[in-house]
Amino acid sequence: MFDLLKTDATCKARLGRLTTPRGIVDTPAFMCVGTQGSVKAIDPRELGELGAQIILGNTYHLNIRPGLDIIRAAGGLHRFINWPGPILTDSGGFQVFSLATIRRIQPHGVEFRSHLDGAPLFLGPKEAMAIQRVLGSDIAMAFDDCPPHTSTTRELRAAVERTIRWAQECRDQPRAGGQSVFGIVQGGTNAELRQECARALVALGFDGYAIGGVSVGEPEPEMLRAVEMTEPFLPANQPRYAMGLGTPAQMVELIARGVDLFDCVLPTRVARNGTAFTHTGTVSIKAGFNRADFQPIEEGCDCFACSNFSRAYLRHLLNVGEILGLRMLSVHNTRIFLKVMGEVRAAIATGTFAQFRREFAANYVPTRKVLLARAADAER
Amino acid sequence: MFDLLKTDATCKARLGRLTTPRGIVDTPAFMCVGTQGSVKAIDPRELGELGAQIILGNTYHLNIRPGLDIIRAAGGLHRFINWPGPILTDSGGFQVFSLATIRRIQPHGVEFRSHLDGAPLFLGPKEAMAIQRVLGSDIAMAFDDCPPHTSTTRELRAAVERTIRWAQECRDQPRAGGQSVFGIVQGGTNAELRQECARALVALGFDGYAIGGVSVGEPEPEMLRAVEMTEPFLPANQPRYAMGLGTPAQMVELIARGVDLFDCVLPTRVARNGTAFTHTGTVSIKAGFNRADFQPIEEGCDCFACSNFSRAYLRHLLNVGEILGLRMLSVHNTRIFLKVMGEVRAAIATGTFAQFRREFAANYVPTRKVLLARAADAER
Repeated sequence: MFDLLKTDATCKARLGRLTTPRGIVDTPAFMCVGTQGSVKAIDPRELGELGAQIILGNTYHLNIRPGLDIIRAAGGLHRFINWPGPILTDSGGFQVFSLATIRRIQPHGVEFRSHLDGAPLFLGPKEAMAIQRVLGSDIAMAFDDCPPHTSTTRELRAAVERTIRWAQECRDQPRAGGQSVFGIVQGGTNAELRQECARALVALGFDGYAIGGVSVGEPEPEMLRAVEMTEPFLPANQPRYAMGLGTPAQMVELIARGVDLFDCVLPTRVARNGTAFTHTGTVSIKAGFNRADFQPIEEGCDCFACSNFSRAYLRHLLNVGEILGLRMLSVHNTRIFLKVMGEVRAAIATGTFAQFRREFAANYVPTRKVLLARAADAER
Repeated sequence: MFDLLKTDATCKARLGRLTTPRGIVDTPAFMCVGTQGSVKAIDPRELGELGAQIILGNTYHLNIRPGLDIIRAAGGLHRFINWPGPILTDSGGFQVFSLATIRRIQPHGVEFRSHLDGAPLFLGPKEAMAIQRVLGSDIAMAFDDCPPHTSTTRELRAAVERTIRWAQECRDQPRAGGQSVFGIVQGGTNAELRQECARALVALGFDGYAIGGVSVGEPEPEMLRAVEMTEPFLPANQPRYAMGLGTPAQMVELIARGVDLFDCVLPTRVARNGTAFTHTGTVSIKAGFNRADFQPIEEGCDCFACSNFSRAYLRHLLNVGEILGLRMLSVHNTRIFLKVMGEVRAAIATGTFAQFRREFAANYVPTRKVLLARAADAER
C-alpha cells in the first residue's frame, strides 16, 4: 500500500505514494483535521479545491456525538460527511488521556468520563478498533497510552508497555474492508523507550507507524529529538506519521528527518483567531497595519481567499465577527499547509530539497514561543 | 430603469425588470442582506450559485466599521467585498432609530451614540447620501424617521413630516454615477398618514418607493394593512420595496398586494439558530426527529446543502457547534427565499399566480406567533 518512490540524497526526506481503498495520497502529505466529521469551517468541495487528498476523523469524538448508530445507519463516516476520499481515524487514545477525566486505567482499556457530560465510558483497543471498523476509515490507528510530556521515566515505561500490549490487541481485531492499521510509538524523549516501543510494534507488524507523544506541550527541540530517536527503527518501506504536528517550518524539518504524514489543527484553529499562515510565518490579519492593505493575504497564493479578497476586507470581517472572515482564513491556511507539501514533493522529486529546506527555514520566522524554546535548548 | 412586464389578472402581483448599472434584477426579487459587507456565512461565489441578483449593504454599519476611508480607498463597496452585481444600501435611518442611543433629533438629522462604543455621531439626509455616494451602491435609500410600531398618531405624524422633509434633502444631494434613490413611506398603520407620505414622496419624484415602518415588531395583519394602505398611491411604473420583510409566505402575500422587492435577515439569522425554511414552513434541524434522517433538508431542493448533506449530518454539525452546519443552513434558507421568488415570477408569467398563491398558502405552516396574531386579528 506504500510505494517509496525516492529518498533524498542529503537527508532522510522521502517521496512516496500511499494507496488506500478510496484513493492515493502523495507523500509527504498534510492531513486536514476533521475531528467531529468536518474540517472546521470548510466544506468538501473546498477541500477538493485546496488539494486535500486525505482527512482525519476522531474515534473519541464521533463515538460520543453523533454516536455509532447514526454513522452505521448512514453507511459509514465517508457517506455521513460526504467526503469520498481517504480518511484516517485517530483511535481516541490521545483524547482519553488529554480531554476526559480518567477514572481508572484497566488492563484492556480506560474507564473515563466524557468531557461533554461526564457520562461513564470505556475505551480500549477492542472498543477503539470496533468503532473505527464502523466508521469505515481507510486507515485506523491503534489505541495507545499517550502520557504528558512531563511524565517520569517510570510513567513513560508503563505507557510504552501498555501501548505495545494494546497495539497487539488492536492488530488482532476485525477491520473494515481494506482498512489499514498504524501502530503508535510512545516513549517521550527517552531514546531507549522509543527504540523499544518502535522495535516491538514493528515486530508485531503494522501497515504504517506513527510517532505519538509529540505535540503534547513539549518544546520544539524535544519534539524533534523524539522523532529523531524513533525514525531509525521504523521500516523504510512503510509510511511514518508524526501525530498532531506542526507548523509549515516544523513539517519541512520533520520531512528531512524521514516523516511522511502530518496532521495538525493549527491552520483552522488559528484562523478562527484571525491569524494567517504564509511562507514567511504567521501574520495577524486583524492587526491595524492591514487596515488599508488591499493585497491578498499572501502574494501569489492561489487559494479562494487570496483570489477574491484583500487583507483589508478580511480584517474588517474578522473585526466585526463575520463568519466569512474565519472561513477564508481557514481556507487560506489549509491551502498553505497543502501547498508547502506540494512544494516539498516537487523539491524531493527534482533533487532540490536541501536548497528548498534551507531557503524555507531562512524565510520562515517562527513564533516567539518556538524561538525561545530553541534559544533555551541551544544553551543546554 | 424599471420595466413593468406584466400585472396579474387576479391581484396586484407584478412581473418586472429592474435595470441597474451593475446588472438586471428580475422582480419580484428577494435581496440578500449583507449588513456589514457580507451576506452572513455566505461567500460571493455561493451567492451567484444561489441565484442572488442583488444584495444589501448598510450605511450605518459600514460607516462605523470599516469606515468610509477604507471603502473609498478600496474603490467602493463592490470592489471592497468583491461582489460585482447590484447593491442596494439602506440609509441608516432604521438603525439610528432602532440600534443607537438617540441623543437628539435635529432639523437636519439625528445626533446619536454608536451602538458599538458610544461614540457621538450624526446622521441626516446629507450625511446618509454622502456615505452612500462613497459606497457607490446602485440603489441608495433616502434617510427616514422610522418610529416604533407603538407610536402615537402624533408621533407618527411628526415622523412622516420629518421623513418627507429629509427625503427632499436626500433627493437634492449629489450621487454616485448611475445611482438611483428610493424614497421611504412611513406612517405606521394610519391610512391617512401613509397616503400623505406616499403622495408627497411621489410628488418629489424618486426612482422607486419603499414601504418602511414595517417589520418593526408589529403583528402580521398590521404589516399587511400598512402595505395595503400605501400601495395604491405608488406609481405603477416604478418598483415598490417592502423593507425588512418577510417569510416566504408573507412575501407571496405581499407580492399579491403589489410589492416587487424584499429584504430580510431571516434566512441567515434563523440558520445560525439551527432553523431551516422549506416550502411548508420552518423546521428545527437540531430536533431529535432528524437524528437518523438521511434525507436532505427539503426533498427536491437544488442547493449545495441539499445536494450534499443529510438532515442527520447537519443536525450533528449544529449540535457540536461546527461552522459548516450554520453555513449550510444559511445557504439552504437563502436558496429557498430566492427559489420561491423564481417560482412566483414563473407563475405570474404563465398566468397561474392565483393558483400558486393558494397552494403556497395552503402548504405553508406559519410560526405560532404569526398564527396567534392572525387569530387575534380575526376576532377584532
